[in-house]
Amino acid sequence: MYKGGYTGKILRINLTDQTSKKEDLSLETAKDFIGGAGFGIKYLYDEVKADIDPFDSDNKLIFAPGPFSGTSVPCASRMSVTGKSPLTGTVGMALSGGHFPVEMKFAGYDALIVEGKAEEPTYVWIKNGDVKFRSAKKAWGLKTTDAQQVIKNELKDQNIRMVCIGPAGENLSKVACIINEMRAAGRKGLGAVMGAKNLKAVAVRGTGKIAIADKEKFKVAKGVFTKAMKDSPGLYKKFAHVGTGLGALSMSSKGIYPAKNFTATGEFTPMEEFGVDVQKERTIGREYCYGCPVGCSQLKMAKTGVYAGTMTEGPEYETTFSLGGQTGVSNYDAVIAADRLCDELGLDTVSAGVAIGFGMELFEKGIISKEDTGGIDLKFGNDEAMMILLRQMAYREGFGDILTDGVKVAAEKIGKGSEDYAIHVKGLELPGYDVRGSKAQGLNYATSYTGADHNRGYAIQEIKAMEVPIGDVDRLSIERKGELTVWNQDVRAATCDSPTMCAFLLDIVMAPTATQNTADLMEGVTGLTYTPEEVQQVGERINNLAKAFNMKAGFTRADDTLPKRLMTEPIKAGVAKGQKVSQEDLDYMLNEYYRIRGWDEKTGTPTREKLTELGLEYVADDLGLK
Amino acid sequence: MYKGGYTGKILRINLTDQTSKKEDLSLETAKDFIGGAGFGIKYLYDEVKADIDPFDSDNKLIFAPGPFSGTSVPCASRMSVTGKSPLTGTVGMALSGGHFPVEMKFAGYDALIVEGKAEEPTYVWIKNGDVKFRSAKKAWGLKTTDAQQVIKNELKDQNIRMVCIGPAGENLSKVACIINEMRAAGRKGLGAVMGAKNLKAVAVRGTGKIAIADKEKFKVAKGVFTKAMKDSPGLYKKFAHVGTGLGALSMSSKGIYPAKNFTATGEFTPMEEFGVDVQKERTIGREYCYGCPVGCSQLKMAKTGVYAGTMTEGPEYETTFSLGGQTGVSNYDAVIAADRLCDELGLDTVSAGVAIGFGMELFEKGIISKEDTGGIDLKFGNDEAMMILLRQMAYREGFGDILTDGVKVAAEKIGKGSEDYAIHVKGLELPGYDVRGSKAQGLNYATSYTGADHNRGYAIQEIKAMEVPIGDVDRLSIERKGELTVWNQDVRAATCDSPTMCAFLLDIVMAPTATQNTADLMEGVTGLTYTPEEVQQVGERINNLAKAFNMKAGFTRADDTLPKRLMTEPIKAGVAKGQKVSQEDLDYMLNEYYRIRGWDEKTGTPTREKLTELGLEYVADDLGLK
Repeated sequence: MYKGGYTGKILRINLTDQTSKKEDLSLETAKDFIGGAGFGIKYLYDEVKADIDPFDSDNKLIFAPGPFSGTSVPCASRMSVTGKSPLTGTVGMALSGGHFPVEMKFAGYDALIVEGKAEEPTYVWIKNGDVKFRSAKKAWGLKTTDAQQVIKNELKDQNIRMVCIGPAGENLSKVACIINEMRAAGRKGLGAVMGAKNLKAVAVRGTGKIAIADKEKFKVAKGVFTKAMKDSPGLYKKFAHVGTGLGALSMSSKGIYPAKNFTATGEFTPMEEFGVDVQKERTIGREYCYGCPVGCSQLKMAKTGVYAGTMTEGPEYETTFSLGGQTGVSNYDAVIAADRLCDELGLDTVSAGVAIGFGMELFEKGIISKEDTGGIDLKFGNDEAMMILLRQMAYREGFGDILTDGVKVAAEKIGKGSEDYAIHVKGLELPGYDVRGSKAQGLNYATSYTGADHNRGYAIQEIKAMEVPIGDVDRLSIERKGELTVWNQDVRAATCDSPTMCAFLLDIVMAPTATQNTADLMEGVTGLTYTPEEVQQVGERINNLAKAFNMKAGFTRADDTLPKRLMTEPIKAGVAKGQKVSQEDLDYMLNEYYRIRGWDEKTGTPTREKLTELGLEYVADDLGLK
Repeated sequence: MYKGGYTGKILRINLTDQTSKKEDLSLETAKDFIGGAGFGIKYLYDEVKADIDPFDSDNKLIFAPGPFSGTSVPCASRMSVTGKSPLTGTVGMALSGGHFPVEMKFAGYDALIVEGKAEEPTYVWIKNGDVKFRSAKKAWGLKTTDAQQVIKNELKDQNIRMVCIGPAGENLSKVACIINEMRAAGRKGLGAVMGAKNLKAVAVRGTGKIAIADKEKFKVAKGVFTKAMKDSPGLYKKFAHVGTGLGALSMSSKGIYPAKNFTATGEFTPMEEFGVDVQKERTIGREYCYGCPVGCSQLKMAKTGVYAGTMTEGPEYETTFSLGGQTGVSNYDAVIAADRLCDELGLDTVSAGVAIGFGMELFEKGIISKEDTGGIDLKFGNDEAMMILLRQMAYREGFGDILTDGVKVAAEKIGKGSEDYAIHVKGLELPGYDVRGSKAQGLNYATSYTGADHNRGYAIQEIKAMEVPIGDVDRLSIERKGELTVWNQDVRAATCDSPTMCAFLLDIVMAPTATQNTADLMEGVTGLTYTPEEVQQVGERINNLAKAFNMKAGFTRADDTLPKRLMTEPIKAGVAKGQKVSQEDLDYMLNEYYRIRGWDEKTGTPTREKLTELGLEYVADDLGLK
């Protein structure tokens, strides 16, 4: 049902011929995909050939906040960035918070679709309905903070919000991210897609307001939402004051904090170095996304040695893992400085850190030597080596040039059996969960439409013991993990990635009622009505459509797998000691997953019946399904 | 005469008891001292005991834009910062451009007088008439770019302008500067005075307008001024496109580009490294002070090696000298990166570079060894050593802790004859002119009220061959240098440092008519009328009053001197080969200088008669003059 009041707009930006066009968003797309990642995947599937080279000018980048962004619903200043990923070759979708997402909405747009390729370094300057293409020669080469400041100065407006890339994106590092202020749409190398398009930045200023279709309904739905936040024992009282930074401790206590390229899980547990006191001492304040009353982003400053005085927003847990545990660097100040350096260079901290840890293991195993590293003593724990390599990765110099395409490609180039140590799924480096001790998270990595992405189906039941309609689970068991993972993936897509809402609210507060909340808020904001089941079905639709894109890109059931190490070597120490995910375990979980998805169990792919049920019959035709 | 219409206001800020008070500016002070440096020195003399420890809470910092700041006269967004200098013990006065000066005016103030000392790290937040004292614990320790951003975010206003200090000022480095955006009130260690007061920043937002007393007069005077700028063959066509950056070439061609602690003047002329092509390649754009149509500030980005991607505003000529020639570092990208590092740490580039060059000479001479430097190979030309030492200077670590008090104190600490290599006047390190080949500039260094400050009486006739009412001069001769220097010092104080106007306009365009222009503009803006001679007399008054402060601080004729090297060792190569300033030369010039000043030639100090003539009889009383 549709009560009226929705006026979605898309801004299509063509860099090749430097034109732009404002289009109406179809009500059908709005209803079926909600916004954010939903829109991104819908437009990507419909408009980009799946077998394209991600650096081809025909690849697109879709920046999409959700219908909740810019309204007074808290924690909704999020957006998705979607394109074909140069790192994985799958759908590339990454999310970011901050202020840019709502600024896009205030400028009047539910999505920007960036097409083509500029001849020379360019940035796009959008002021409400006015779109200009400007030379970015001045800013090309600059690190992200300077680039943003230089563009603000050039446009004589300090209130501009923007997304931009650093040297890593310009140099087509496949682990390059997209930065807005000090936040990242981090993973899957989408910064390099901007780089390939010669697009340094998109600067936006918007002064409009967001229409609310049903003010009364909205008010009530928002009230339920904010009350749930207030009533949460964990949100304001705990999470707000520490953010994700203490994850190293809780993951260690679960035995799944991965270290030294997943060789030392349960052994290297930097409790003292990354612990409460150390982090507290470094915390100088908090930063808030637009409209967020929580402010989980901890602003930290390094205190010691050559890193003293270096500030960063974070490091978030994943970074504490990737630039800390994974590299064996226990100097928290080095992790702070490396986090900032990644932001400045425009490198994804997770993939960059995992790649360096991979290099360290090869070095320690003697598979590569100082001859390969250009003299760098690439041992685990060498923070100086890490800093040098991060710079090299952004500039494609020395050994960094090998690592900067991610561990999958690096292993192919290095050879000598190094593939066995490349910790990735579909080319995407693993985040900070040793899934040998969290089976649903493992199944999620294997099946997520963007490779080993913890956020696309985060196993909150296993990792945070979150109460959800699924009931109790044993994280070490392989039972019911298909059911769990489908629920996580669909609910995440429909209630976080698309509306768009901060995932931490799902993880901490809203999971049991997320689909109901989303239905109510959608009706209030857009006038589009949903049952909770319909909301969940939006998530299912998104996951099916993304899967179809990946199928067309050549991915098969064989790609729904995990790194060899996690399937053959058990965890050596800690409370998850002895755990692994054998091929049999994985197959068992995959079979259940495909079954619950209503897919063909043998091929692990959607059926015509399922696609038709989701309103995606045209996709079944594309795929030539019977 | 006074035609009415002037409404000057002073904001007095007391950090000790966290109070502020808005006061009327006396018309007499306005008339006698114009503004800017004039006000700074007037308030400093009247309110601060000259023999005080500069870090005592009774020292004050006076931030003063001039009457022209914030009007539509171009190039007037300047301000002086005045206090007793911790580096020299004399009057400390440094100027800065940018946007902060006019923001102060728009907020309603002709000067801020900062008094006392906060108990804990504090910043002051001034929004028009509203003054707040806020905790700076969050920002304390941060580098200047981050500090400014964090405070803007905290105050939720990206349009705030501010002055702040970096780690160097916090750690009481005597060569610490005050930064606004990427501009510095660089010299004399005034950043450390902020540090001693626990004052991290002063943030300002102003929305008022500047009253113009006589609009018609103002329009005409401004017209003359802007026409002269337009007609200048050098300003828009040349200077705007290169800024001061090519000074290394022109000073080299005059044989006065100092190098390697003034041992290699005329030898080390990094024409290729710092030349036109290299600079052009690095120039990514220009930055403009508020209301400036010239934009001489060249935004540059390093291109090579580990420095690639580092941006800076500059390096200005003085920095190209101090972090280049003086240290023997010919890698221009290293100079760019060191310039930025100084800005971030809040170090004066000139003093910092000269101090490092001093250390390098001691190291090469064997006066100090690796034992003293903590293992650093402190040879001329070692850019890596320079970068390490800059950081150490800001944090008072290792050998940097010695250098960070300036070469005078460092030489006292090191002993072993190192005093002979300490290139300073009254503790202030020499800027980039080897005054053995520019005698009036030498006399200016010896007599300036703030030590070796090129800007307080820049010998434009010698260095830029600027046509002035003084007539032709021979820069190698010691004749008429007293006359020249008095003219330069008084005109600079009255027409640049006080109104406040950009000195480059004096140097390039206005010198012959500067006093007339200033008189006309003063009448237009303030309603206060002057003859050109009265304007010049304001300069004389300022220089006399500052001298009186220094006398009370214990300085005598013996302090009006030059570094031993310049008085004993002739320049070894280049077109100024063989030149030096012997004690006899200096005495000859000093005698003429004092005579022309109407001072006592023997003591080099003002007479009661002169002070009375300048309306400073109370100063004669203070000094106990007969």
